[in-house]
Amino acid sequence: MDFIKQYIDNNKQRFLDELFGLIRIPSISSEAAHKPDMYKAAEYWKKSMLEAGADKAEVFETEGNPIVYGEKIIDKKLPTVLVYGHMDVMPVDPIELWNNPPFEPVVKDGLILARGADDDKGQSFMHAKAFELLVKTGKLPCNVKFLIEGEEEIGSTHLYQFCKDHKDMLKADVFIVSDTEMIEEDIPAITAGLRGLAYWEIEVTGPNKDLHSGIYGGAVANPINVLCKMIADVQDENGHITIPGFYDDVVIASTRERKLMRKAPYDEKTYKEAIDVKALKGEKGYTTNERTWIRPSFDVCGIYGGYTGEGSKTVLPSKATAKISCRLVPNQDNHKISKLVKKYFEKIAPRYVKVKVTEMHGGMAYLCPIDLPAYKAAERAFNKVYGKEPIPVRSGGSIPIIAGFESILGVKSILMGFGLGSDNIHSPNENYPVNNFYKGIETIANFYLEYAKDAKK
Amino acid sequence: MDFIKQYIDNNKQRFLDELFGLIRIPSISSEAAHKPDMYKAAEYWKKSMLEAGADKAEVFETEGNPIVYGEKIIDKKLPTVLVYGHMDVMPVDPIELWNNPPFEPVVKDGLILARGADDDKGQSFMHAKAFELLVKTGKLPCNVKFLIEGEEEIGSTHLYQFCKDHKDMLKADVFIVSDTEMIEEDIPAITAGLRGLAYWEIEVTGPNKDLHSGIYGGAVANPINVLCKMIADVQDENGHITIPGFYDDVVIASTRERKLMRKAPYDEKTYKEAIDVKALKGEKGYTTNERTWIRPSFDVCGIYGGYTGEGSKTVLPSKATAKISCRLVPNQDNHKISKLVKKYFEKIAPRYVKVKVTEMHGGMAYLCPIDLPAYKAAERAFNKVYGKEPIPVRSGGSIPIIAGFESILGVKSILMGFGLGSDNIHSPNENYPVNNFYKGIETIANFYLEYAKDAKK
Repeated sequence: MDFIKQYIDNNKQRFLDELFGLIRIPSISSEAAHKPDMYKAAEYWKKSMLEAGADKAEVFETEGNPIVYGEKIIDKKLPTVLVYGHMDVMPVDPIELWNNPPFEPVVKDGLILARGADDDKGQSFMHAKAFELLVKTGKLPCNVKFLIEGEEEIGSTHLYQFCKDHKDMLKADVFIVSDTEMIEEDIPAITAGLRGLAYWEIEVTGPNKDLHSGIYGGAVANPINVLCKMIADVQDENGHITIPGFYDDVVIASTRERKLMRKAPYDEKTYKEAIDVKALKGEKGYTTNERTWIRPSFDVCGIYGGYTGEGSKTVLPSKATAKISCRLVPNQDNHKISKLVKKYFEKIAPRYVKVKVTEMHGGMAYLCPIDLPAYKAAERAFNKVYGKEPIPVRSGGSIPIIAGFESILGVKSILMGFGLGSDNIHSPNENYPVNNFYKGIETIANFYLEYAKDAKK
Repeated sequence: MDFIKQYIDNNKQRFLDELFGLIRIPSISSEAAHKPDMYKAAEYWKKSMLEAGADKAEVFETEGNPIVYGEKIIDKKLPTVLVYGHMDVMPVDPIELWNNPPFEPVVKDGLILARGADDDKGQSFMHAKAFELLVKTGKLPCNVKFLIEGEEEIGSTHLYQFCKDHKDMLKADVFIVSDTEMIEEDIPAITAGLRGLAYWEIEVTGPNKDLHSGIYGGAVANPINVLCKMIADVQDENGHITIPGFYDDVVIASTRERKLMRKAPYDEKTYKEAIDVKALKGEKGYTTNERTWIRPSFDVCGIYGGYTGEGSKTVLPSKATAKISCRLVPNQDNHKISKLVKKYFEKIAPRYVKVKVTEMHGGMAYLCPIDLPAYKAAERAFNKVYGKEPIPVRSGGSIPIIAGFESILGVKSILMGFGLGSDNIHSPNENYPVNNFYKGIETIANFYLEYAKDAKK
């Protein structure tokens, strides 16, 4: 057994206990009531960094949630790897669908069950432990920095400015991030591309109060009906988004690229069965993977208006609200799209209602060339642990700050994720295989060795 | 001062205090938690009937909410008037928009402020007091029956069977009901027609759990988007309902009828300002009054799905639900329409989602000929109190059981309402002018005298 495996084996339970301590803090970034929990999570991370061997660690205040930075500089001439992760998690509703309280982690059937078990507490904490392993065994081959934020799930709002304000401190040769998925438990992947995001809240106001639907129904525009119509009109029967200019900047993937993508394993039957749908629905002319990897999407993430309680209430409501998001693809500027869509909804708003569009968070798409030395090092590390080369894939998900790191700090990120499609991230019963947690630590430790070896050449 | 005015004047404060006692009971019929309150309200009514002079009064159990019946039979040869009203009220949400706690009635600027102040506690309780007045002054000229139910706002579900089971007990020459509006505070109206109602809950299920909108967005149908499209497609650009067969049974109002209707006062500017909309929206080819009186409507009363909390959450939700109602017009059978619409939504449901349509409550429309002797008696009573003839109007609202009384018991109802358009029924800050309460009692007492006079001829 090599020293990496040995160290993990000797510390298995403690690693898990420490992760559980982090998970128990309900650090939901989108709910103001959990603000104190963000600070608890930040202090937990600071302590973890120091105990793992960082020279220093600090909790930085922002106008939003705190950011934790830590570092160990062993030799300024050696390359520097920066670990990025996030300590905030998604809300837990609908809470009634959880089989286990979301902030009381347990291991059951080999799975860690909890909100944040995967996204991103489980995945980011592997880095703390891989770092500890190399420090304590005296094998750390390069400088390491940690950047852990508390607003990833709400758009990394204050991290952009933080990066601008701390360019020197965050200087690194490469960023490494574990916040993505493998293809299967034994098929590793490196995510070479991410979609971007734009998000809006659209509020349609009709009458100034809820009206009796008998007295007024038929004579006064119903804001729910109007909102539904506005949403329905955004996509045509082929699944194309009809907003003028929406596709203008999209880089069309080449025929060769699309051919390579089709090599990624995909089984429609399994895919449909896993989510229990009889048929898939997407943009005409594209495969399922293409629809989520290289094409933008338009999804209503939430809608509400009028009477939503038990039973029935006949009412012509005053307001209806939708939370809408678009996933964007390389070269679509999220700010431009955000304004385009806002203006579009304001323009098509009929006279008989008031429409208010609020631009929420967003981010650019990202691409990582697969011949980057750091990418190659990650490839070798995966190969060593899993016995096979990781497949370069793209992800439909967004980690907008990854594009930000590139534009602000000029550094590429390597997305070496250990999550599985069955981890229910963002959903009830989020989980993370405990095996992936340990193998992730092993792979990350190997990455440092491979990356430093490469850098010496 | 005649004896009616005198009696009211002598008992003003007590009448109000007694009404407030009824209002303080939060008898919301659509919320199961308020079931005990329905019994409290029933007992309150029973006591009120007996104290007012009923020979007997009884609370009947049903499989739903209780029904209160009371009677005073003075002479079997005399005509019998049955008073119908309801003791249940609508939910109070959005509670934050109330200026006053909804179940703590107060009088402010001449208005009784509370849920149920008008609909229908304030209006129905006038009948108890008009009855008391005639009994206590020895002037009651006919037999009187009371039928007070607890499910009007949720479709009078169990009252239909109750009527079938108690045909003899409920035998009457005419029903009188106060649950409608005047035109203005000094312009009385008798409602000669009511729209019917059908109500559905439509649940669209996509994936079996909330999905990450990045990983799946664009490849899996979003149930909110699908629901919006289904709703949007139900009406064309002219406001016509596109469901095949929907208008088949509608009785087209004659040109003469439509001419008469246009005599009802209507000022578009005032109408729009009262509800703060810049423009009205309805079916092409009809006036505002026609749209709410003689044409069916299609309104989404409530919609919800996905993330509806604070801030943003990127999610491709599993479910979306809409509560939908149609107001119906004479000759549209609500059961037929209910099935028609259910089948339509099930038929247009795309393969990539599951659509479940639940038929909720409903009721037929109603028409009352304006030459009916009881109508004429009400006309004279209003004339006496207000110094002008009431205008025969139709109402866009539904009191489905009114059509039920006709079909089951063969009795027409006279809808002599004292509410105002500004009473905010079904909305926050429901109110009822205290003056209307007293004038209503006066008009109702006069109705009995006029009606019995007429019946003797």
